[in-house]
Amino acid sequence: MINKLTDKITKTGAPVVVGLDPMLSYVPEHIVKKAFEEFGETLEGAAEAIWQYNKGIVDAICDIVPAVKPQIAMYEQFGIEGLKAFKKTVDYCKSKDMVVIGDVKRGDIGSTSAAYAVGHIGRVKVGGQSIAPFDEDFITVNPYLGTDGIKPFTDVCKEEKKGIFILVKTSNPSSGEFQDRLIEGRPLYEHVGEQVAKWGEECMGNGYSYVGAVVGATYPEQGRLLRKIMPKAFILVPGYGAQGGKGKDLADYFNADGLGAIVNSSRGIICAYKQEEYAKFGAEGYADASRQAAIDMINDINSARG
Amino acid sequence: MINKLTDKITKTGAPVVVGLDPMLSYVPEHIVKKAFEEFGETLEGAAEAIWQYNKGIVDAICDIVPAVKPQIAMYEQFGIEGLKAFKKTVDYCKSKDMVVIGDVKRGDIGSTSAAYAVGHIGRVKVGGQSIAPFDEDFITVNPYLGTDGIKPFTDVCKEEKKGIFILVKTSNPSSGEFQDRLIEGRPLYEHVGEQVAKWGEECMGNGYSYVGAVVGATYPEQGRLLRKIMPKAFILVPGYGAQGGKGKDLADYFNADGLGAIVNSSRGIICAYKQEEYAKFGAEGYADASRQAAIDMINDINSARG
Repeated sequence: MINKLTDKITKTGAPVVVGLDPMLSYVPEHIVKKAFEEFGETLEGAAEAIWQYNKGIVDAICDIVPAVKPQIAMYEQFGIEGLKAFKKTVDYCKSKDMVVIGDVKRGDIGSTSAAYAVGHIGRVKVGGQSIAPFDEDFITVNPYLGTDGIKPFTDVCKEEKKGIFILVKTSNPSSGEFQDRLIEGRPLYEHVGEQVAKWGEECMGNGYSYVGAVVGATYPEQGRLLRKIMPKAFILVPGYGAQGGKGKDLADYFNADGLGAIVNSSRGIICAYKQEEYAKFGAEGYADASRQAAIDMINDINSARG
Repeated sequence: MINKLTDKITKTGAPVVVGLDPMLSYVPEHIVKKAFEEFGETLEGAAEAIWQYNKGIVDAICDIVPAVKPQIAMYEQFGIEGLKAFKKTVDYCKSKDMVVIGDVKRGDIGSTSAAYAVGHIGRVKVGGQSIAPFDEDFITVNPYLGTDGIKPFTDVCKEEKKGIFILVKTSNPSSGEFQDRLIEGRPLYEHVGEQVAKWGEECMGNGYSYVGAVVGATYPEQGRLLRKIMPKAFILVPGYGAQGGKGKDLADYFNADGLGAIVNSSRGIICAYKQEEYAKFGAEGYADASRQAAIDMINDINSARG
């Protein structure tokens, strides 16, 4: 799957992923109204609204953007119905040949991580059947529990040719609280980055590993360093746009081959129609606004790749 | 909810939680067969099997055990259908007046943690409605992202009188890989423990905080130290039984009041009928075997409380 991701990035010329992280308040009034008319002000109604909203955006961007990253929390907040919308979104994006990164940030002791791995990127045995429940292409994983919490994910990656991105340095303001603390003179995130490189050695695609890393756009100095520590790890870069990261800060997240990083924007793309710059599209044209914002983002990022 | 938990522990005399972490291989043949006959060898069939299995165990233990801890990964591995079984299990346990700890280990940047908090222990706004989607009493949370990934959970705890347990020192063999690394001469888990104590100050119940901690039974020395660092935090103790922890090792997880800790066993209880000690109950009597194993565990733990 890492090969598919690099191929798609090369083909589209867009090292960009759109975060499908719908809040109900992002969804244009006409979509919400229709969903509530059909299903009421219920979890089902909310799920229908975010699904229709997603579908419009995916249709508008699928030819220019290689990947999407649905944040499962935004669906889980609507319970089972929301998770059905998550699954529909995953399936729909895959039918459009987009790479799907499930932003699930799971991670637990070995036997539990194995269950998450099976549920999201693998197959579960039910009697004589083998079924892929959520079937994302990649997922994000939390490293706090160490190697035996990670291994079940890399095992499934090897079997299924899927991938993971492990949290190394996250984009949020207080990420430094633990991640920046010095251990033998170097911050925790460097130690995690070294492990990511090590875990990834056994899962190599053509040039890059199936085991990638999450490094926030909001910490470019750390990005530069981590790029060197994990030369074969693809870096998933959240925090561009609404969280403050800018294209020009991101040059050092890429390798000399112009690859090795994929930059995410969520609100900046899916909620573009609410920004002054794209207001002319109006709520009815929200998907076209998202497309234009994606084009502008791709140009901004590519100027950084040089 | 922390008050309800301490009250229930006092009333039952059992500082014990049963981990409802069903693998399909744990479920007795007669239950699996019936579920497959009705729903086929499908995710729905698997979900029906684990739900019926859970129900039998809950009916058998609900009068002697104060709380359950369903591990959501074991349901998520069966996709949407599995998550429906999770939700049914949560609702059923609450109808039996058990405290439900959703072992979800979520945690992300602020806005995303807020969505998880709303989905699991809070309420989501849908039009004019306010709906509690999963509605557990407590959940477990991962601290890797720092304060702004935790605050949305404590905010919801305050509003809804729910609670969280934050991972401090996990029970798995490689938990030390990052958690034990020394920062200013003290391991990372101590620093996390200090933050847990701090985060919990604002969410006090009668004697204990709504913000608790996870400390594995497999690390009693660390448990003793963390008990002192977080005097007002309830400690959720996984790793007893199948993972190797023993009652006599757990005395120091409790405070002088005999409270302050709740010990989890999963396989050791729900899969008791497969152990030599409880084999006499047979597969048909799996729930009675679980009850007997729970009684034996309660006695073992109480001998440690002194």
